[in-house]
Parts: sequence; C-alpha cells; structure tokens
Amino acid sequence: MNDEIFELIENKNFIKLKNLIKDVHVPDIANLLSEIEDTTVVIKIFRLLPKDIGADVFAEINNDLQESIAHALNDKELAYIMEELCTDDAVDFIEEMPANVVERALKMSTPETRSVINKFMSYADGTAGAVMTSEFLDLRANRTVKEALKRIRNNAKHKETINIMYITDNSRILKGVVSIRDILTTEEDILVSDIMESNVIFAYTNTNQEELANLFRKYDFIALPIVDNEQRLVGIVTVDDILDVIEEETTEDFEKMAGITSASDDEPYLKTGSFKLASRRVVWLTALMISAIFTGLLISLYEDAFVMFPELIACLPMLMGTGGNCGTQTSTLIIRGLATNEITIKDFFKIFFKEMKVSIIIGAFLSVFTLVRVGLQYSDWLLAGAVSSSLMIIILIANFLGFALPLLAKKCKLDPALMATPIITTILDCCVVLVYFSLASAILGI
Amino acid sequence: MNDEIFELIENKNFIKLKNLIKDVHVPDIANLLSEIEDTTVVIKIFRLLPKDIGADVFAEINNDLQESIAHALNDKELAYIMEELCTDDAVDFIEEMPANVVERALKMSTPETRSVINKFMSYADGTAGAVMTSEFLDLRANRTVKEALKRIRNNAKHKETINIMYITDNSRILKGVVSIRDILTTEEDILVSDIMESNVIFAYTNTNQEELANLFRKYDFIALPIVDNEQRLVGIVTVDDILDVIEEETTEDFEKMAGITSASDDEPYLKTGSFKLASRRVVWLTALMISAIFTGLLISLYEDAFVMFPELIACLPMLMGTGGNCGTQTSTLIIRGLATNEITIKDFFKIFFKEMKVSIIIGAFLSVFTLVRVGLQYSDWLLAGAVSSSLMIIILIANFLGFALPLLAKKCKLDPALMATPIITTILDCCVVLVYFSLASAILGI
Repeated sequence: MNDEIFELIENKNFIKLKNLIKDVHVPDIANLLSEIEDTTVVIKIFRLLPKDIGADVFAEINNDLQESIAHALNDKELAYIMEELCTDDAVDFIEEMPANVVERALKMSTPETRSVINKFMSYADGTAGAVMTSEFLDLRANRTVKEALKRIRNNAKHKETINIMYITDNSRILKGVVSIRDILTTEEDILVSDIMESNVIFAYTNTNQEELANLFRKYDFIALPIVDNEQRLVGIVTVDDILDVIEEETTEDFEKMAGITSASDDEPYLKTGSFKLASRRVVWLTALMISAIFTGLLISLYEDAFVMFPELIACLPMLMGTGGNCGTQTSTLIIRGLATNEITIKDFFKIFFKEMKVSIIIGAFLSVFTLVRVGLQYSDWLLAGAVSSSLMIIILIANFLGFALPLLAKKCKLDPALMATPIITTILDCCVVLVYFSLASAILGI
Repeated sequence: MNDEIFELIENKNFIKLKNLIKDVHVPDIANLLSEIEDTTVVIKIFRLLPKDIGADVFAEINNDLQESIAHALNDKELAYIMEELCTDDAVDFIEEMPANVVERALKMSTPETRSVINKFMSYADGTAGAVMTSEFLDLRANRTVKEALKRIRNNAKHKETINIMYITDNSRILKGVVSIRDILTTEEDILVSDIMESNVIFAYTNTNQEELANLFRKYDFIALPIVDNEQRLVGIVTVDDILDVIEEETTEDFEKMAGITSASDDEPYLKTGSFKLASRRVVWLTALMISAIFTGLLISLYEDAFVMFPELIACLPMLMGTGGNCGTQTSTLIIRGLATNEITIKDFFKIFFKEMKVSIIIGAFLSVFTLVRVGLQYSDWLLAGAVSSSLMIIILIANFLGFALPLLAKKCKLDPALMATPIITTILDCCVVLVYFSLASAILGI
C-alpha cells in the first residue's frame, strides 16, 4: 500500500491519492506522514484527508509534525481541528507547542473548549486527570431507556465511547453506569435507574496512573469514570489510553531497574539527544562507582592474602558474577511480583522461606561443582573448600538481598524497581570480598 | 465490604449474604472465594450467586477452586456453567482439570460446545487462536441497519462484545466490520454493506500473541477478528485479554533479562515450588559460572603483574562494576526499544553513533574522576593513567556490546531479551581483565 501511495505522491497524482488514502487507517496515515521528509508534501496530503479523519490523524502524529501542520493551516482549519480533537489530545498538543502556536490555537478554540483545556492542563502528569478525556456520554437516572437511546443516537458522533454511559444527578455526581448492551436489551419504557449498575468502580483525578491500569486489569473495563473530590464526574479514561500507560510504566520500570533516571517526557530512544541520554545514565553510574571504590578498598585489606595465594583472585570473578546473577534473578522475580500485585509486603516470611530453600538447592549444586572443579584444577582442597563454602554463603546473601531490598523499598514507599541489578550487585561485591577473604584467610591459615 | 461478608459467613447468615453479594463485582467475588479456606463454605457461597454471575465468577477463580467447585456441582449445574462460559475460559478450564473432571464436564456440554472446545484446544499456546473466543456477533452485508439492530438485540446477551460486529459472507469469509456507534447513527433502511469498514485489520489463528498486542496498541482496538488460513472468521480477541497477554509477555521479558528460563505455565511466584523455581534459575547460573571461570583463568595469566602491583586488584571491582552497569543500561534501552517497535535492526548505525557519543560523554566524565581519584589515592599517576584509560575503553566496549548483542539476537531471530545483564556482564568481565591488565602492564612496564 505504502509503495503505491509514494508512487502517487512522486507523480503528483493527488486526485487518485485522495481517493486511496481515505480508506487507510488513521495510525497508518500518521506513520506515512512521519516518513515523508518534505513538509510541503505532508501538508498537501494532510489537506486531502476528509476533515474528521484529518483531526484524528493530527492527534496521532508527533509534535514536530503537529507544529509544521499547525503553522500551515489557516484559522478556520485550525479552529476545526481544535474542536474535533478529544480533550486529552488537545491538551497534549497545547502542552508541547511553542507559545505562538499555543496562543493561536487557543484563540481559534471556542470558549468552552478553551476552558476545558485549561482545566485539564492543571492535572499532574502520571495521574488519571492527565490521561482522561471529557468526551463521555452522561445520562439521567429518571429517563426511560427510549429517551436514553435517543440521547445516545444524537450525541454518539462526538463521544469517545458509547459502549459505556454514566448516570449523573443534577450536581453531576456520579450515580451509576450502564452499557449499550443493557440499553439495547431492555424494554423501551423501563427507567435507566432500574437497569444501571450503581456500585460503580471509579478513580479520582489524582489517582496514580499505575493504580488506574491495575483497575482496568482487574475488572476488564473498556472505560472508567474519573471523579473530582466531590464525586462529580469530570472525565473518562478508555482502555486504549491504558495500553499506552502500561507501555510507559513498563519502560520506566525497565529503565529504573537498569539504573537509568526516568525522563520527564516519554521521548523515544532514537529521538533523545546524546547529552540528555548520558545525563540520565551518569548519576547512577557515579554513585555505583563510588561504592565499587569502597569494595576495592576492602580488597586492599587482604593484600597479603592474595599476594601469597594469587589463585584466590582467579576465583573472584566467578564468585562476584554468580552472586550478582543470583541477586538479579531474585530481585527481578520480586519486583515483577510487586508490580503485578501478586506479592505484597505481608508475604515476607513466605518469600523468605521459599528463597532460602531455593538458595540451598542452587547453592548445593553450584558449590559441589565448584569444590570439585577448584580442587582438581589447583590440587588444593583447602582452597576448594574455602571457595565453595564462600559460594554457598554468597548465594544465600544474594537471594536474601534480592528479595529483602525490593520489599524494604516498598515498605518505605520507594519504587521497588530501584532495588535491582545495579544496586544489588554493587552491595554484593562488597559482601563477596568480606565473606570470601575472611573465610579463605581462616581456612588457609593466612 | 469484605469484613461485612466474612461476618455474615461466620454467623451463617446466608440470606443476607445472598442479598449483599449480588451487588459485588465479579473479580471481587472471585478474590473473596479464594481467600476462604473452607471449601464447603466456598461452595455454599458459590451456590448463592445468581446463575449467570456464578458462571462469570467460575471463569475468574484459580484452577484448584474450579476443581473443588466442579466436584461439588450436580450435573445440571455443571452443564449450565459449561454453556455459559466463553470458549476461551472453557478451554482454559478443560486444559487444567484432571481427567475425571474433564470427562464429566465435556459429557455435560452440548455437542456444539464440545466441538468448539475441541477445536479451540488445538491452537498452540501463545498464538491468537489460544487467546480468542468464539462469542462474536456476525452480520450479513446485504441486510439493513434495522435488521442488523434486531439481530444485535436478540443475540446481545451471549456475546463477548456488541460494540464491534463483523460482516461475513456465506462461506464465513470476513468481509467487514461495523461498530454499534455506526449502527445507531445510521438510518434504518441503509444496508450494512454501505456503512461497514471493508479494509479490516485482522490476525490469523497462528499470529503470535505479542504481534497481536502490538496491533491493539497501534490501532486502539477494543476487539480484533481472527481468521483461519481461508480468511474465515473463527473468533475474536477482546482488549481485556490483551491486557493479560501484555502482562504475561512483560513478565517473560523481565525474567529472560534476569537469566531465568521461562515457565511453561504462568504460575505466580508464590505458587511455584522451590525445586521448580531453582531449576528455572540454575541453567543460566551454571552457564554463566563457567564463563566466569574462564575470566578467572585470564586473570591468572597476569599473576606477576598484580603480585607486583596489588593496587591493580583494588581497582578491578570498580572497572567490572561500571562496565557491567553501562552495558546493562544500554542493553535495557535497546531491548525495550525493540519490544515496543520503536527501534529496528535498520537503525544499527544511528544507534552506533548515538551510543559512541554517549560513551564518550560518560567515559570522559568518569575517567577524569578516576584519574584524579586514583592518582591522589596512590600518588601513582602512571597507575591512575592505566586505570582511567582502561575505564574509557571498557565503557566504549560495554555500550557497544549493550546495543550490538540485542540487535544481533534480533537479526538471528532470537529473543533480544536474552542479551541482557547476565550475559553482557559476563562477557564484559573478560574484556575488563584483558584490556585492564594488558594496558596496565604496558604503561607500568611490568
């Protein structure tokens, strides 16, 4: 399809292109536009789109393209886009544009749109308020199903969803929820109040977006109502936005677990400048480096030991590596379990016993292997004993830190994802030096 | 709410309980049942539920509870559950039950249900076929909107969704899609074919579930039609199931990145036995241990050097740690970028230049810091020069491996998530030893 479109663009066959492009899905048009280098061609194609599709495409393209198009549009076109955009998309647009575009876009908006945008811009990033949109359909409890259906038909075009409708009272307080399925399968003269679900699950505008995603996961919703502190319905969040939230939160977790500071925006990797990327990485690298220097100082204390037994050093990478890998495994399982709500702090002792059992199984296997390997390699069974018993202890410590640190972080209301590989391996390296050299000194009689 | 319910259970006030529980949301009832230890109480409460809610709850509880309840139900009750369960839930149930329960459940099903279950059971785990359900609503293109609406009303109760309907021809070939919004906002005598979207996005039964999730993310669908090789519509996947798929896939990625072998089932951490958990972890631990032994052998080659300059060893943990952390950061960014389709193999050179720039920025900062620190600490500026220049080279190698290995894995059709911390740190440890000791030997003239 894309090849055909590019050919039409090349040949400036815009009539045929207009005909073809109206059947292309919005995200595909958005992708296509971002692949075209020449902005004048982008704008030409954008103008070929049916007006309502144009607005949908506008919501999906990146900010640079939005800016170029906004500059090229005349006042009437811009006004149309501003009215057609869903509130959440309009807010995203306004937030990312330079002042002159913002000023013009708001001037072209109706007073109502302007006031909603201003209100929605006040919600903090990462909260339900920042994800929600205002295009929900509300019904009154004392109307009949027939009246409700009429209202749905009349308003359907401009609502984010008509699959779920919300019932509010005169003060806009959320009272119930009803699905289009219930409306269509109920006799016309029954009251909405008789079929609505009044035990509504909702979130507040300041509910964390991660909690919001958990509600969707648990209840299989396609939309969730968002209320203010007075329980007034102010917006809805739809599941497609939750897919984006989950992607964003997962990326954040992955990055935190790798010791990368979170970006304030969710700029993709390829679009992030090298300086910014370096600055997001250098903080943790420096902190961890300083701890590693401390480990080095500890090693210096055992200089006599390893100058006398240089074989001791040969086993160090294996001990540090295996300890680090064990700790990484455990902390990953625990951090993920906490993120999916499958583990809570209350499970501390259950996890403790499980990890100790796992440590003994893994430790026994790897220690015996190490005992035999080092013993045969160096024909020194005292050394082999020192290395393999250190390994056993290190695995126990690694698994203990791997589960205890993320749980401790959770307890202290910190993000458990911070207690992942980088921190755990750095702490473990210290433990390895202490356990290994003191045990070896004792066994080898240094 | 739960406290009140538990009190009613304690006091055996089942009449009041019945009244209360019918307003509780299905996932909350399922949670409640799994918290009750006494199976006879579970079954008593299950029987209090309105029949249709009972079936919904049955689909949400864990397999152990399903088995207990299935045993306690009489034939008529079991038959009702089997008919009410969506195909995907019925298949999950049948797959996890022991033979005697399976036999009885299938015997109690209608021949149609039995045949659909058997067919759905043949789809491989991790494909669209294994996630889809058969309760979709299909319409014919040559019917009017009025006829379609009548069909929707009559069939709504037993369909997974009526928000999206699919249009098929006489051979059940997928021809189009129409939303309930389009149906409700179109004049009654217009043909379905005139309003349907005929450029349908669909997936095949053998489409990988990760690709499926990407389609939902890209197109913001709430449902997607699944066809067989002859383009016949055989099922639909709804977005709530995709939320589960994403959670499962993310967990798998996290585990792979920590060197944990994937479980065949998605058993939660707390329910997995210690032996099973240990066996999922020990494979990679052993493999990585063997590579670490190799690093140890490399160190032995430089025995003379570090016996003469024991300070060399003191700087080793810092070099290994920083290299490992850098590699972890880069590989995490790349693996995540590949998973979200934001990076492709084609971007190799873009990433190469970006990572080299990042390496130089980070490397310059950390190396200068190290030069000054080691120089002042040991009053040996040759040693400081050796350590800091090694650090610079190691950071370059770490970032190179961190992006090249995941891309290489992708190129070889392996999962990029395998090329994460454990492998990268193990390879890096080797590089650190080689770079550091040969550079130090040269500079210090050992």
